[in-house]
Amino acid sequence: MQRLESALNEAADAVNRTLDRLVPAVEGSERRVVEAMRYALMGGGKRIRPFLVLNSARLFDVPEVGALRTAAAIEMIHSYSLVHDDLPAMDNADLRRGRPSVHRQFDEATAILAGDGLLTQAFEVLSAEETHANPAVRSNLVLALAGAAGAAGMVGGQMIDLEAQHAKLDLEAITRLQRMKTGAIIGFSCEAGAILASASVEARRALTLYAEDLGLAFQIADDLLDVESSAAVTGKPVGQDQVAGKATFVAVLGVDEARRRAKLISDRAASRLDIFKERADLLRDMAQFVVTRRS
Amino acid sequence: MQRLESALNEAADAVNRTLDRLVPAVEGSERRVVEAMRYALMGGGKRIRPFLVLNSARLFDVPEVGALRTAAAIEMIHSYSLVHDDLPAMDNADLRRGRPSVHRQFDEATAILAGDGLLTQAFEVLSAEETHANPAVRSNLVLALAGAAGAAGMVGGQMIDLEAQHAKLDLEAITRLQRMKTGAIIGFSCEAGAILASASVEARRALTLYAEDLGLAFQIADDLLDVESSAAVTGKPVGQDQVAGKATFVAVLGVDEARRRAKLISDRAASRLDIFKERADLLRDMAQFVVTRRS
Repeated sequence: MQRLESALNEAADAVNRTLDRLVPAVEGSERRVVEAMRYALMGGGKRIRPFLVLNSARLFDVPEVGALRTAAAIEMIHSYSLVHDDLPAMDNADLRRGRPSVHRQFDEATAILAGDGLLTQAFEVLSAEETHANPAVRSNLVLALAGAAGAAGMVGGQMIDLEAQHAKLDLEAITRLQRMKTGAIIGFSCEAGAILASASVEARRALTLYAEDLGLAFQIADDLLDVESSAAVTGKPVGQDQVAGKATFVAVLGVDEARRRAKLISDRAASRLDIFKERADLLRDMAQFVVTRRS
Repeated sequence: MQRLESALNEAADAVNRTLDRLVPAVEGSERRVVEAMRYALMGGGKRIRPFLVLNSARLFDVPEVGALRTAAAIEMIHSYSLVHDDLPAMDNADLRRGRPSVHRQFDEATAILAGDGLLTQAFEVLSAEETHANPAVRSNLVLALAGAAGAAGMVGGQMIDLEAQHAKLDLEAITRLQRMKTGAIIGFSCEAGAILASASVEARRALTLYAEDLGLAFQIADDLLDVESSAAVTGKPVGQDQVAGKATFVAVLGVDEARRRAKLISDRAASRLDIFKERADLLRDMAQFVVTRRS
């Protein structure tokens, strides 16, 4: 896992530099919202989605600058979703990655606007010429990301998650919830390399299947961490899902079966990448990492 | 103004049909957020921005379907901004266009998500092939709309507006606020026709200047309506700006001078369109309308 850790750190450093450049501090009286956007973006995190973009792009030798901008756009979407999900009307979370959440550090109005600003800028970044010389590729990136992030994807998933507090979900429903809420963006992260490279349908399909398994394994592992880990390790309060009566894989499957499935699905994720041979080793490492991480 | 009224109604009907088709009700457990998106979109309103798109597109004989989809995308952005601005943490408005605002009709969490969903879908609509056969045009639409809607435009403007409650703005600051908060999206609405047509720099520039004047005249007139009109006519409580201590053109200029300037700027807006001759008559009517409307 040494190899993966280095690659994750490298991806995080590169995307952090890109984000710092794409969202510079401003001087006008709107500076507060930009500060909040930067605060949300620069809170650390493992940058798994950027890692997925960069390493799916490397399968096809996509130029680094376009991959980095795409990774930054995804991180903007991911960060916006955390800012809005943390709001009092949603998950009401005071902490995020060990720091005050954006509405606690700033205020609710600024947090809503910062999320809106990040969501909007993601599409600005993707549609700019620097991301790819071919406008058809840029359009495809926007179309795919918007599809993954909107009401048929992440936004819809968050709605289901909120509704689930009033209803018991079965395994099928909870799987659909995960696919929409977190799976769709992970899917886009993995497909981004293929889109940037205008790769074959077969190559893109392999990445889609890998991403589906990866996202599912990731979520099951996340649910396991919520019941098993400690706040000191994860940087956020644990046992929150249970307290909130949230539908989780662990609640439906139990700890042992959840762990067994996570392992199985993670192995299947790795095998989806056979056509890329050893070039996909880091992506295979990632599939293993998501179910063995401690935070 | 009979001619303008017909054209406004026609634009509203056409964009309503398009929105109804683009955001169909869904059956899944995420249906609540889609219902809220539809509620936000279908609340009526004069559809001035769609009118501007359709009529700027007609200057260049742009096919109707692309203009309508672009108009729908702008209305999604406009609607999302109203939903989020109405939230308790922002303007805390219970009414919008004579009906309960989205968070009053549904709840806060759903309103936040519905806004996010609308914002996201706007870019999905613009980047889809149906909007324009040329992907470079689609990319340009996304880039321009994101620039107008983000922290350098509408989102930044709303931040300034919130901050202005703690500081007195002078005329320059209030003009910058208006340019960002409402002017940028009106600007994009007018430029959209030129982008769809890949029109000359000169033609696009004329529309930009028209839009700048139109937006400014519109906002001054809006501030005047807030002090002069009645709730029965505007569909929302009046005198709200004053109560909230908001920076308005009327507060800075006084009623008489504000009215004088609105007229002047509206006339100048009309003259910006000289190069289009009589083809731009409806857009000229609009410039007159925004300063004479009663709601």
